[in-house]
Formats: sequence, C-alpha cells, structure tokens
Amino acid sequence: MSDDGAAGARPRGRRTGGADTRGTILAVARSEFAAKGYDGASVRGIARAAGVDPALVHHYFGTKERVFVAAMALPFEPQHVLPQLLAGPDEDLGERVVRFFLGVWARPEGRAPFLGMLGSAVTNEQAAAMLREFVSSAILARVASALELPDRELRVAVAAAQLIGMGLLRYVVRVEPLAGATDDEVVALVAPAVQRYLTP
Amino acid sequence: MSDDGAAGARPRGRRTGGADTRGTILAVARSEFAAKGYDGASVRGIARAAGVDPALVHHYFGTKERVFVAAMALPFEPQHVLPQLLAGPDEDLGERVVRFFLGVWARPEGRAPFLGMLGSAVTNEQAAAMLREFVSSAILARVASALELPDRELRVAVAAAQLIGMGLLRYVVRVEPLAGATDDEVVALVAPAVQRYLTP
Repeated sequence: MSDDGAAGARPRGRRTGGADTRGTILAVARSEFAAKGYDGASVRGIARAAGVDPALVHHYFGTKERVFVAAMALPFEPQHVLPQLLAGPDEDLGERVVRFFLGVWARPEGRAPFLGMLGSAVTNEQAAAMLREFVSSAILARVASALELPDRELRVAVAAAQLIGMGLLRYVVRVEPLAGATDDEVVALVAPAVQRYLTP
Repeated sequence: MSDDGAAGARPRGRRTGGADTRGTILAVARSEFAAKGYDGASVRGIARAAGVDPALVHHYFGTKERVFVAAMALPFEPQHVLPQLLAGPDEDLGERVVRFFLGVWARPEGRAPFLGMLGSAVTNEQAAAMLREFVSSAILARVASALELPDRELRVAVAAAQLIGMGLLRYVVRVEPLAGATDDEVVALVAPAVQRYLTP
C-alpha cells in the first residue's frame, strides 16, 4: 500500500486532492452506506463511486468499519475501544461499560451521531438496516465474542438496550431525577444490571 | 352509556359538532401541548383555543391527561393500566411490566406514538419538554408512588430506560437475536433486571 494511491495525475497524486478528496470520499461513503446498508457497502464500491482508487480509501481510512466511523463522525472507534473495555477484570465490567457510555453520551457531539442514525431508523428501513448492520458487526458481535456465556448475543443486545434507553431518558428527554443524577448514582444502579447481563 | 352516543341526528346541541368538534379539540390540543408543554397546557386553554366551553372538553375526554392520550393517539391510558400492573404480587412485578410493554410495542400502532414523540424530542426542546412532563407525571410518578424504596424515582426511570431501549433495538433497529427472540426469551432475561429496579 506504499505509494500507489489515486487522486490521480494532477502533479503528484495523493496530496493534490487533500482535504477535498477525503471529504469527497466521506460524502460518497455516507450515500453508499445509506443506499446499500453497512454490509452491502464496500471500500471498492465507495472508491468507484468517488472516482478514486480503492487503495486511496484504504490509505485514508483503513477498513470499511473505519470509513463508516469517519463518515458518520462517530465519537470512538469500536475496534480500539471495545478490546480495552473488555480486557479489564470481569468483576467491574458492568461499571466500565456504563462509565464509558456515559462519557460518550454526556457530550452532545458524542451522542449526536447515534441519535441521528436512530432518528432515521425510526422512519426509514434502509437507515435501520445500516444502523443494525453496523451495530451488530462492529459493536455487539465484538462484545459477544469476548464473553463465555450461553445466549451471549441476546445478553449483549439487552445490555446495549439498557444503555441506549438510559442515554435517551438522561440526555434527550431529560427525565428527572435521571437527568440530574451524578454519574456515580447512575452507575450504582445500572452497572449491576449490565454486569448481570454480561457475566455468568 | 346506554343510547346517548354520538353519531346522532344533528338536532340537539352538543351532538351537532360531533366528530368535527372532537377532532378540532384534539388538533388544538396537539398544538397547545406542543407549544406549552404538558404541564403548561390546560383544559381551559385548549377549550379557549378551540372556541368551545371547557365543559365540552371535559365531557369528551375528562382530564388533561386523557386529552393528551387521545390527542397523541397513545395506545393505553396510564391512569387505568398502571394501577392494574402495580396491583399484582410483588414477586412478578418485573415480568408483568415487561410483558405489558412488549404487548404494546409489538404492534406498530402501539409504538408509533412514542416513537414520534421521541423522534421530535431529539431535535426539538419543546417536544422534549412535552414528552418529559407527560412521562414524568402520568407514568413515572404513578409507578414510583406505588413503590416503597429509597431512590424510587431514579429506579423507575432506569427501568423505563431498559424497556424503551429494548423496544427500540427489538422493533425499530431490529438487532438480532433480540428482534427474533420470543417474548418468553426476552422476559427471562429482562424481567429480573426490571424486578431488581422496582423491588427491594
């Protein structure tokens, strides 16, 4: 993958397009993911639609998952964050997961991408498919594969449901006393439930 | 309720407006709730804006809560349903609550009003306030008042969060295996968590 990029002739390839090329790829990626879903889209197809070489997409972003993370402005990269979260001791897995979620959703720009995808999913089956496929493969499957439990996929989904519902009521609907509770108060109540879902 | 129903013959006062008056009141109620929030709106204000006597609003709907339920086409009346749910034995409170929620959200017309309000709440603070105030007073406060627990309001909010998140992932995003799981499988996993939130 050294220096074979695209962005084409101009004087000297890659640098020319610069931010523009990167922005074009992301814009094209958003439409490709929206039209084909997360599973149906591909780095190759995104490159083709953007009129660049697939190697350039790889150069800028790496995997399809990372193209998606960048295109949707997600606040973290599941492939880096989840292994860290899962690597600690089992005894406080629930707490680590809840604290991480609170840290992301407390910031408006952290929760906005998920709220946007969720909002589209309510009215649009294609958007629902895109969100479902991404969440399933990049988040849920990754967490489930680290657990040793029967029903682990169902357990992970239900734990995610607890977190998403909490995020909505705490930060969007802002129901009291959940909205005004400290992180520690929320963790004290919710972490044991998440712990119970994710550990034997 | 014998024979004095609506539909009737036009001569004789109240009936004249019939469905039209009722529909007008509901349309006006929707704008009043949206503009003033649930707490800020009143039967009197709705009547004034609709150009009818408050007694007529009471006649058609009863309380402000029931005007809201009708205006938003909610699939159940909290004031009737919640006391029933809460009246049974404590041992299976979690299961009753989860089964009731699944029964409502499984039907598209059962979940649509909540999804609509939630979707508006994401982008619109007035809509968030309306949803927050209704959910707080008609649902959460009613459930909390039936419990004897410290932190009961926070516990009820977190239990509601579990249910709402589950509804979104099961019926809207349709993440597997949650979407395809039977009600019994979901209940087996989620009811104990809800039970733990709602009971000592």
